[in-house]
Amino acid sequence: MSELVRYRARLAYVGTDFHGWQRQKNAPRTVQAVLEKALGRLAGGPVPAHAAGRTDAGVHADGQVVHFDMTPSRMPERILEAINALLPWDVRVFEVEKAPPDFHARRDALWKEYLYRWSRARVIAPRDSPFVAPLSPRAEAQRMLAAARDLPGRRDFGVFGVRRAAGESSVRNLHFVRIEERGEEIQALFRGDAFLRGMVRAICGVLADVGRGKAPVGRVAELIETQDRGLLAPKAPACGLTLVRVSYESAEME
Amino acid sequence: MSELVRYRARLAYVGTDFHGWQRQKNAPRTVQAVLEKALGRLAGGPVPAHAAGRTDAGVHADGQVVHFDMTPSRMPERILEAINALLPWDVRVFEVEKAPPDFHARRDALWKEYLYRWSRARVIAPRDSPFVAPLSPRAEAQRMLAAARDLPGRRDFGVFGVRRAAGESSVRNLHFVRIEERGEEIQALFRGDAFLRGMVRAICGVLADVGRGKAPVGRVAELIETQDRGLLAPKAPACGLTLVRVSYESAEME
Repeated sequence: MSELVRYRARLAYVGTDFHGWQRQKNAPRTVQAVLEKALGRLAGGPVPAHAAGRTDAGVHADGQVVHFDMTPSRMPERILEAINALLPWDVRVFEVEKAPPDFHARRDALWKEYLYRWSRARVIAPRDSPFVAPLSPRAEAQRMLAAARDLPGRRDFGVFGVRRAAGESSVRNLHFVRIEERGEEIQALFRGDAFLRGMVRAICGVLADVGRGKAPVGRVAELIETQDRGLLAPKAPACGLTLVRVSYESAEME
Repeated sequence: MSELVRYRARLAYVGTDFHGWQRQKNAPRTVQAVLEKALGRLAGGPVPAHAAGRTDAGVHADGQVVHFDMTPSRMPERILEAINALLPWDVRVFEVEKAPPDFHARRDALWKEYLYRWSRARVIAPRDSPFVAPLSPRAEAQRMLAAARDLPGRRDFGVFGVRRAAGESSVRNLHFVRIEERGEEIQALFRGDAFLRGMVRAICGVLADVGRGKAPVGRVAELIETQDRGLLAPKAPACGLTLVRVSYESAEME
């Protein structure tokens, strides 16, 4: 048997009909399960795939990065075509390339970007509605922008994350949060070296409440300072969130 | 019982999961059936809806126009909200207004616009793939543009339409066909006062063959002149087609 080679691949998916990235017992459909099934058929045996970001149910990806090992029976170009031919329409592989043998999609990531999209349209166009969360037409991007200024930096984001085991650090380095108004849409782009599970959607829930005046602009700072979960807003819906980009030392997979 | 009032409404739908506009016996899901069900629940009795364009299975609409009659129990504004609350996510009503009692969505239309989208991307992003048809990366928009020049005018488009009963005219007035290149996409916008059933997709099939060099640029003119169905290309896939706009004497519904 020939030696295994490590590959990395960039993929996009529409998260709507997936129970998230991670393979689960009895779960009907996850991106990992669907991808590993295709890889397994290609390789003629099980091929575990590891992702940079384990996206939740309903969350989309434009630039998810994964690594996996296979025998180098064909060129990366051909692997890409063969995988896509085996994948359902809602997952697509955009790049496949050989990686160093110790490359790890999650651990080697320098930073990741997540985009959250809200629509303030009175009626949301069906073609947009799988990708945006509704927000009151009266929501003010300026308030959300002001609130988001308190986020960047190396901080304890524990209050925004799913509860973790004692002793696990909930300190993360958030590089920036960019709030943009695009017509009826408001978008929030988050870049950070890592994110706690559920963190972006918890923050977006608070930002939405700030935008529509249900929470004060200082709420974000207050949450970070007090770590009081009682001050949280409902988590923003999964459909609004997309993992857009993962960056590495060697930048080809951005 | 109070008198019925005629309404007209503009709606959008993602055609992917619909067997077209028209209600059918035993058909699982059509836009008309879904809309009439919502209207019927609102009115407490059957409300037939008539569309400007009876789109085929898988064809989308951004600006379909329909008319229906209901007792004026609420303001058009409230009707819009109430219908949307009853509709599935893939159909949305954008406008509802009172219309003259003899208004007819199809017969009164001055013209309609259909947009066809191809993607020449090597890998099509999942979020686009329900709305574009794949086309060879080597396809040339310039060739398609040249071929499309032979289309506009009042002509017999019979060769492009589904076969009709003897004596029915297949002459239609096509105002323009606008071919545009947008990055990897090629788009064709058709405006005409009416279209034969299947006409746009039959024409687009020929344009695609011309674009990728499988048919000569003169093929469109040849088809119109000879009316020889043997020269047709396979019909372009439904997913690429969208009814974008219907125009009326009173322009509010555009």
